[in-house]
Amino acid sequence: MAKASKSLKLAGKPAPARGKPTLRAIKGGKAVPAKASAKPPASKPAAAKPAAKPSPFKPAPAVADDAPVIALNLPAAKLSPAMSAYFKKCQDRLGFVPNVLIAYAFDMAKLETFVAMYNDLMLGESGLSKLEREMIAVAVSSQNRCYYCLTAHGAAVRQYSGNPLLGEQIVMNYRVARINRRQRAMLDFAVKLTVQPWSVEEVDRERLRRAGFSDRDIWDISAVVGFFNMSNRVASATDMRPNTVYHGKTR
Amino acid sequence: MAKASKSLKLAGKPAPARGKPTLRAIKGGKAVPAKASAKPPASKPAAAKPAAKPSPFKPAPAVADDAPVIALNLPAAKLSPAMSAYFKKCQDRLGFVPNVLIAYAFDMAKLETFVAMYNDLMLGESGLSKLEREMIAVAVSSQNRCYYCLTAHGAAVRQYSGNPLLGEQIVMNYRVARINRRQRAMLDFAVKLTVQPWSVEEVDRERLRRAGFSDRDIWDISAVVGFFNMSNRVASATDMRPNTVYHGKTR
Amino acid sequence: MAKASKSLKLAGKPAPARGKPTLRAIKGGKAVPAKASAKPPASKPAAAKPAAKPSPFKPAPAVADDAPVIALNLPAAKLSPAMSAYFKKCQDRLGFVPNVLIAYAFDMAKLETFVAMYNDLMLGESGLSKLEREMIAVAVSSQNRCYYCLTAHGAAVRQYSGNPLLGEQIVMNYRVARINRRQRAMLDFAVKLTVQPWSVEEVDRERLRRAGFSDRDIWDISAVVGFFNMSNRVASATDMRPNTVYHGKTR
Amino acid sequence: MAKASKSLKLAGKPAPARGKPTLRAIKGGKAVPAKASAKPPASKPAAAKPAAKPSPFKPAPAVADDAPVIALNLPAAKLSPAMSAYFKKCQDRLGFVPNVLIAYAFDMAKLETFVAMYNDLMLGESGLSKLEREMIAVAVSSQNRCYYCLTAHGAAVRQYSGNPLLGEQIVMNYRVARINRRQRAMLDFAVKLTVQPWSVEEVDRERLRRAGFSDRDIWDISAVVGFFNMSNRVASATDMRPNTVYHGKTR
Amino acid sequence: MAKASKSLKLAGKPAPARGKPTLRAIKGGKAVPAKASAKPPASKPAAAKPAAKPSPFKPAPAVADDAPVIALNLPAAKLSPAMSAYFKKCQDRLGFVPNVLIAYAFDMAKLETFVAMYNDLMLGESGLSKLEREMIAVAVSSQNRCYYCLTAHGAAVRQYSGNPLLGEQIVMNYRVARINRRQRAMLDFAVKLTVQPWSVEEVDRERLRRAGFSDRDIWDISAVVGFFNMSNRVASATDMRPNTVYHGKTR
Amino acid sequence: MAKASKSLKLAGKPAPARGKPTLRAIKGGKAVPAKASAKPPASKPAAAKPAAKPSPFKPAPAVADDAPVIALNLPAAKLSPAMSAYFKKCQDRLGFVPNVLIAYAFDMAKLETFVAMYNDLMLGESGLSKLEREMIAVAVSSQNRCYYCLTAHGAAVRQYSGNPLLGEQIVMNYRVARINRRQRAMLDFAVKLTVQPWSVEEVDRERLRRAGFSDRDIWDISAVVGFFNMSNRVASATDMRPNTVYHGKTR
Repeated sequence: MAKASKSLKLAGKPAPARGKPTLRAIKGGKAVPAKASAKPPASKPAAAKPAAKPSPFKPAPAVADDAPVIALNLPAAKLSPAMSAYFKKCQDRLGFVPNVLIAYAFDMAKLETFVAMYNDLMLGESGLSKLEREMIAVAVSSQNRCYYCLTAHGAAVRQYSGNPLLGEQIVMNYRVARINRRQRAMLDFAVKLTVQPWSVEEVDRERLRRAGFSDRDIWDISAVVGFFNMSNRVASATDMRPNTVYHGKTR
Repeated sequence: MAKASKSLKLAGKPAPARGKPTLRAIKGGKAVPAKASAKPPASKPAAAKPAAKPSPFKPAPAVADDAPVIALNLPAAKLSPAMSAYFKKCQDRLGFVPNVLIAYAFDMAKLETFVAMYNDLMLGESGLSKLEREMIAVAVSSQNRCYYCLTAHGAAVRQYSGNPLLGEQIVMNYRVARINRRQRAMLDFAVKLTVQPWSVEEVDRERLRRAGFSDRDIWDISAVVGFFNMSNRVASATDMRPNTVYHGKTR
Repeated sequence: MAKASKSLKLAGKPAPARGKPTLRAIKGGKAVPAKASAKPPASKPAAAKPAAKPSPFKPAPAVADDAPVIALNLPAAKLSPAMSAYFKKCQDRLGFVPNVLIAYAFDMAKLETFVAMYNDLMLGESGLSKLEREMIAVAVSSQNRCYYCLTAHGAAVRQYSGNPLLGEQIVMNYRVARINRRQRAMLDFAVKLTVQPWSVEEVDRERLRRAGFSDRDIWDISAVVGFFNMSNRVASATDMRPNTVYHGKTR
Repeated sequence: MAKASKSLKLAGKPAPARGKPTLRAIKGGKAVPAKASAKPPASKPAAAKPAAKPSPFKPAPAVADDAPVIALNLPAAKLSPAMSAYFKKCQDRLGFVPNVLIAYAFDMAKLETFVAMYNDLMLGESGLSKLEREMIAVAVSSQNRCYYCLTAHGAAVRQYSGNPLLGEQIVMNYRVARINRRQRAMLDFAVKLTVQPWSVEEVDRERLRRAGFSDRDIWDISAVVGFFNMSNRVASATDMRPNTVYHGKTR
Repeated sequence: MAKASKSLKLAGKPAPARGKPTLRAIKGGKAVPAKASAKPPASKPAAAKPAAKPSPFKPAPAVADDAPVIALNLPAAKLSPAMSAYFKKCQDRLGFVPNVLIAYAFDMAKLETFVAMYNDLMLGESGLSKLEREMIAVAVSSQNRCYYCLTAHGAAVRQYSGNPLLGEQIVMNYRVARINRRQRAMLDFAVKLTVQPWSVEEVDRERLRRAGFSDRDIWDISAVVGFFNMSNRVASATDMRPNTVYHGKTR
Repeated sequence: MAKASKSLKLAGKPAPARGKPTLRAIKGGKAVPAKASAKPPASKPAAAKPAAKPSPFKPAPAVADDAPVIALNLPAAKLSPAMSAYFKKCQDRLGFVPNVLIAYAFDMAKLETFVAMYNDLMLGESGLSKLEREMIAVAVSSQNRCYYCLTAHGAAVRQYSGNPLLGEQIVMNYRVARINRRQRAMLDFAVKLTVQPWSVEEVDRERLRRAGFSDRDIWDISAVVGFFNMSNRVASATDMRPNTVYHGKTR
């Protein structure tokens, strides 16, 4: 069970994937410098004058969370040409490769099916806007308390909507968001399907239809709900860490 | 929003997909002959002599649940050559096309990504046996009370194990199954990840490692758990109905 | 705390109760041949060619789960004349004595009151058909995930209704069963009374009355719900095992 | 659906059962004098000087809750000789007939099996003291929030123990009771079996054995837990009202 | 971490607070005479003839639960003049100082803010009667199963209403209380806000307005609900014990 | 029930409180311009090119959520001299008056007791650092999904720690935060006390002591947990809205 020695660290800019770097430098139970160097909040911060002048606080540091992407030791595979091109496109357009892709990159078949399904669902043609699909992603991830997905898709909601509050609200409690009736019905369905899937019945589909959704839209809502119920669990099971760059987007 | 008039009914043997038949003849709220003809248990069955001789019961009829596959009206798309071949292969080997494939067949991109992910996860190479992956599928689906998946994958557990009881036990309460320590650890993890994904931590991964699973195995367990948390919700959201043929398999 | 040495094994046909055979050969923690011989699914079954031709699977073996009836070491008492006659009647009509009776047979007073209450509730006069009472038994047992009762009464629903699907559906998620409005109201009440008994109020009784139930029917529904909430707990507390013969009935 | 006109009112002393008096004068939805006369707390009681001298409060009135015993209209049956003698014995020894017996008295078969099971479980021979069985009854009923059983069996715990606090504590939260290790293990098991029966396994039985319970004791604990999970539901389903005399016992 | 040696024991009449008595003689894990002397119910009480004559039970002893007020070792501070006067007033009017005040008396700032908030909320001007505020206190504490608050405020409901049953009913299950529509709406809101605060929305406030509550009343209901959700947790976290005198009040 | 016409709108800088301005311009059910003008995310935002170049998104607007502070119509009272000074101090040091203070400002007694308790708990002397108290505030508020408190105290955690990630992590799922053993024990206790207060026992206090907390620290942790269980409910019950300025702090 020898571990490869290079860890793909992807905050900001990923190192090019080559050889067999591991996605994880830690193994269960062993303390690891990467973690140790993660900022533990000092028990008694120097800057502890509360309720003080407008800026009693230290400026936020350019955080570099150099923890591994996931808590499993899975050596990265060689990227297929398609995936290599896709990662390059991410780097060019977003400025980084999302960590979820790094996580799946130990196996090209798994990475490619994940990317294909993600892109079809979240970016393909649909009666739902891309923002709406991201809103579902966040509402579902909030129920499952998934750190990775709340961070990455919370940023997407802020970006697509241009409304920093909206992203925060759906992360915290979607019921407080000032959204229209259609979107509220959509999120109510998404949360019910997440929390009590066994109790969804015709009356729930009818409620969506009355809110203006077609049967195809209902499929799409359900498929996005399903997808994030999958992704949330893969992320939680592996302690997947989001790229730190997401945190500061569109605040 | 005119509906095509032919419903793909797939108990036993599906009609060949042609033209634009709909997957659903019902629309929310309207009563429909298909449903009406579904066997409602008579309130007072004629054969009501209980605790009678060994066979006081009517022989089980050859049930033909001609309900539509899902409760959404999604006209079937033309099968792509790859999918057409795949459906034919299902028909030849299993004797039927699983209804979940019919359900996705309104859109070839969705059908193909679903099939690719399913086949990679459930039939691809892994440290988990195919039976073990099916056991996870059923344990997860039991938590989510998913009729479709419990029926189809319960049959698979019975078939792969050659043990009719094992399938029933995991459907009902996996804790009563006489399985080995490794498999019990695997199902405990699967159920925790399904029910409280936010609470899965390093200690849970360590438990799997101590039970003999590699980090790659942990990924595979997590991915199967995730996949069925997705499929359970798509099936529940759409009232997906399993092929009736599953019920009688390996009893 | 010496244990008697004969275990009543009742799959198929019980040995006649004589002397002081114990109902259980195991004691907590000690491994026991009976269990060891229970079929643990092989990690990698030989017959692992999935999605193969119509019958890639081994024929289901005639399973003989020779585990003890319950996980408590309770020496069987001498059957009273009434109970002896009753066991004989079970053997003659059903072909076996239900394991729950074997479990109670360590004490004639307990066995007789259990049998009296069971027979009055499930077979006595009532506005509910015997099938309906069995449907309640299964819906309740599904909430409590009781292996014994789901197996025995799931078989009864299949037998009384002559509809193998109906039994499976109520085991898995009663909401998917194609039942009439009256029966749906009955099962909704049964499940609410099982899961949140404190929240049942006049409005719930009114809903049953509007669905056509008399006040006496409401008592009977409640009493059957109560009875299985009792039996489920006795069965779970003692790890009661159903006769294997139930699994294959009316499939 | 004509209603008989006499209601058995049993606070203090029951009227002799004769003819076909009903157990309930109300029918769903109709307001009824009996209820109207039940003391609704005045919104602004005259005696509203709080934190006043030692007795700023009105003396507790001799409350006569003349509400019907249950919220179902079930005409009382003629008591069988055995039950007639039993009711007389209750009246002589306790000073009243417990309302649960009045509730079941619409049908002699049901009344007699209930009484037989109750007496065997709660008063018959057992390794558990009568107090311990009552403690289980109350701990279970607290989880199910059953007004009838908490009142009647809370009084029994106070009486058997001679400790008014103990009864209150188990009604409110059994974890605060100053009980010994054996009794704590017993109540922990009872509550787990009530709330999550599916999760009870060998490890739980072992915990009881280590606390000193025999396998027969474990059966008895389980049977009492089961019995009150039944009774709680019958009482909640029918809005069964305890005799008011219980409230003041052993305070 | 030396402990002061005197424990404030306050059943009945508190010793005057002087020097630095501790509120607790126990420290985690160590057995302590005070606890040991608490009445453990004898396993098999002598007076075990159940269903016997009207008084088969020992008279309730004058229980003196001399356990410490809380399970934390916090030396009592010197009472400020205001608090000294307040404690004297409690002693004069109620006959005792409520243990919650003793518990907070290790720090005058905390005691004074607690008393100020309590008195404003529970005794200050409001559209809610004092009884209604106590009803909310008990309904909330029942959800949180708080022994201290159920005991102290259950007594208050009995006293303010002059109805011993009402206090018991709200402790056990507020849904069985015979209260008017306004009070039922109030308690439904209180319980929802306690159990699922995130799900309270405009529709819930509207329900209160329709039941006759003003916006200021809604604030007051919410503030009392909030206050007891705080107090319940402080009491549970510290194992706070109510004065035994409460148990016998207004029975 | 005439409503005063001026609403205190406090994003950024509150209007000086004078006369009797209302805290709320809406009344249940009536649509209101303030809300209508809140940014509903457009269904199909113009800037919908996802996965595009680094900045495909509109710049975040300077959001001015001019919704009322709470959803109750409570005319503001005249600030007492103490509170007037306190509001001025907030304005000077923070640049704004926190909306929770505006919400309480309809009644000086309530405002003053709230401020006194808050300042004692969160800013007074304690073995817990101010950051640790804020971490508890956020972990509790996450369980209760309280938008107001997560926003205001999430910002405080970011500010005190100088670590933007830490605030986000505790909002989303405190288990992913890289904190030390002491702080993890503290948050585990806080969350258990929030979710299942009835189950907190000596073993839980011992766990805190072993992690280095004194009995006084345990009180402080419990009191902060209690306080936010109160505040979360007052905020949720009244739909309290945080100052928008919090969202952008220390990102």
